[in-house]
Amino acid sequence: MDVFNKLVNIFEDFPGIGPRQARRFVYFLLNKDDGYRENLAHTLGALKNTVKRCRDCTRIFLDTKPQTLCTTCADSERDQTCLMIVEKEADFEVIERTGVYNGRYFILGGVLPVLADNPETHIRIDGLRELITRKGDTLKEIIVALSATPHGEHTSEYLINTLKDVPLKKTMLARGISTGVELEYIDKDTMKEAFNRRL
Amino acid sequence: MDVFNKLVNIFEDFPGIGPRQARRFVYFLLNKDDGYRENLAHTLGALKNTVKRCRDCTRIFLDTKPQTLCTTCADSERDQTCLMIVEKEADFEVIERTGVYNGRYFILGGVLPVLADNPETHIRIDGLRELITRKGDTLKEIIVALSATPHGEHTSEYLINTLKDVPLKKTMLARGISTGVELEYIDKDTMKEAFNRRL
Amino acid sequence: MDVFNKLVNIFEDFPGIGPRQARRFVYFLLNKDDGYRENLAHTLGALKNTVKRCRDCTRIFLDTKPQTLCTTCADSERDQTCLMIVEKEADFEVIERTGVYNGRYFILGGVLPVLADNPETHIRIDGLRELITRKGDTLKEIIVALSATPHGEHTSEYLINTLKDVPLKKTMLARGISTGVELEYIDKDTMKEAFNRRL
Amino acid sequence: MDVFNKLVNIFEDFPGIGPRQARRFVYFLLNKDDGYRENLAHTLGALKNTVKRCRDCTRIFLDTKPQTLCTTCADSERDQTCLMIVEKEADFEVIERTGVYNGRYFILGGVLPVLADNPETHIRIDGLRELITRKGDTLKEIIVALSATPHGEHTSEYLINTLKDVPLKKTMLARGISTGVELEYIDKDTMKEAFNRRL
Repeated sequence: MDVFNKLVNIFEDFPGIGPRQARRFVYFLLNKDDGYRENLAHTLGALKNTVKRCRDCTRIFLDTKPQTLCTTCADSERDQTCLMIVEKEADFEVIERTGVYNGRYFILGGVLPVLADNPETHIRIDGLRELITRKGDTLKEIIVALSATPHGEHTSEYLINTLKDVPLKKTMLARGISTGVELEYIDKDTMKEAFNRRL
Repeated sequence: MDVFNKLVNIFEDFPGIGPRQARRFVYFLLNKDDGYRENLAHTLGALKNTVKRCRDCTRIFLDTKPQTLCTTCADSERDQTCLMIVEKEADFEVIERTGVYNGRYFILGGVLPVLADNPETHIRIDGLRELITRKGDTLKEIIVALSATPHGEHTSEYLINTLKDVPLKKTMLARGISTGVELEYIDKDTMKEAFNRRL
Repeated sequence: MDVFNKLVNIFEDFPGIGPRQARRFVYFLLNKDDGYRENLAHTLGALKNTVKRCRDCTRIFLDTKPQTLCTTCADSERDQTCLMIVEKEADFEVIERTGVYNGRYFILGGVLPVLADNPETHIRIDGLRELITRKGDTLKEIIVALSATPHGEHTSEYLINTLKDVPLKKTMLARGISTGVELEYIDKDTMKEAFNRRL
Repeated sequence: MDVFNKLVNIFEDFPGIGPRQARRFVYFLLNKDDGYRENLAHTLGALKNTVKRCRDCTRIFLDTKPQTLCTTCADSERDQTCLMIVEKEADFEVIERTGVYNGRYFILGGVLPVLADNPETHIRIDGLRELITRKGDTLKEIIVALSATPHGEHTSEYLINTLKDVPLKKTMLARGISTGVELEYIDKDTMKEAFNRRL
């Protein structure tokens, strides 16, 4: 394959990018000068000894020093008793930005397809169990914080079930009416939760 | 104005209908035969002595007998201690369909614009106060069930404030993650509620 | 069926209206007073002896006097040599508004489904043939002006084919690049026409 | 700035990419292994002595040998008498794929903002003039093939005007009804062209 199509193929892998936009990306890069492309290649290369995965939360972080924990997991000021399970780094970022939560995280690395045979190949369930064991008595609560989509809900159920043997409080983010939602379009599940937990 | 444009004008008033679709409606009706249009006119006429507004919940209902209460308000099996305030008939229908709630309703008839001078010209606040007084000691809780839109939230706040003097429990539908919502797109308010009310 | 659902059913027939919006229409009407609904019913009734279908172009028009021709067909100033075939009244209106054409029209009353057995039940092909015969030698050109959609194109082809025996010039609106269209999204047929007829 | 944000900044430059998707790209790359990122960096580097701009059409092409002309401009089988002016490489690709045109191209490199002071900084007007001069008598026709958007039309007008002194036939792609367009939504300009060039 020629260099052009090699690049198109790579960009087609990027999240949310189809063949047409992948070609636009390549043309965009081709119309830039050598310096621009070298800068991108160089920045990618600079990641080599910088990208680390946190031993505890499995979150990707960048650090030139040899660290095993990300800044959040290394922060002793944060509440050690709560562990929030999220799907991916972007969810972690969104929740941190709200400032609502001050405990620990675990990045699950994905959600479960409905008829998945080997859950451990889709989500980091083994890493999660290991972390819970390692934390021991410090940990008091596990908060499942996944999307209210079919895959997210299926994964939440799976987690609650599979962690039945873990003697900890297990909670889930509350369902209810999200900002911007009109009452006229509410489904039964959301209405039920919104009504039962009214305040 | 000729009959054509008179009809266009009327249909432009219909909720969600612009000038182009109003004209399509008129052409649709013109291409039907006299019988079709007479049937519509006749059905509209049949409403004359049938449309009633419930004395209690202010909901529109159809009945040929002289009734002052809609079937919901006349139903003595329903919980008399709860009064849910909704914006419009369609919201009432959606909530009834969920089967989650078995109390009374009050149709507010609208929401408040943010800088509204005379709230009573936008929403049936006077009718609401009157109903609450009439219900007396039977009533224990008022549930504000409005959309999580800026106008809805503004109206909820107004209701809670203006009913401060009413010695009843006042609640609102819980905020949280609605069905279908991805965690990555959650706002701070929704996240806060979803976290604080986790179960 | 009760009056409410009768009205919902009628509005569901309206072009582009689904069950939810049909209900909103009914609630909208129920919340208006008797006068409003009577005005609508009365205006519909006023159509009774007013709606006429033009003998020539088959267009619907409103006139209280006993007319057989619409104002366009009755206008002797208009070019009698050209007959433009359009699908529906709204298309006629759009073309008239552009001021580009000053000839006659024929309203086909629909387009042909791809595997339609009896074309004459879908479009007014018999009325068209009759009009062409009646016009005789005055008529020089038939212009097929249908949408560039699959059904529109299928109907254009059918018309050109079925009128092969009519010894008149037959033309179609030119294909090319429509206002707002980006070159990057052009299909082969449009490009071919746009190129071959460049000026 | 750290490596993470440096990469986010670069991806925000990509066509059609906002801050949120730029971050998603970076997280996507961070979750891949070193080999994946090195492959991308290496492929970008491989462009260094491969990216060439065609002397004639200014189109970007990839070739390891020292070429001054792209394969299209070097192809002596193609019609030398026609020069089609397009905005960008993607437009060239779309037109080639239709197989409708077999002449030469010139990539303008952009379109003109409506009140642009120095056209030569937005589009390759100087390169175009130079190519026309160089082609001399061989060239018979210049075809302006830009989008039917406001900027595209403004640029077409500018080109026709500014090349008034060039004694060649100048044409534009025909306007008309594009595939998929419904007659009801046609604008005056498109209707005029579609009518005047009917066939």
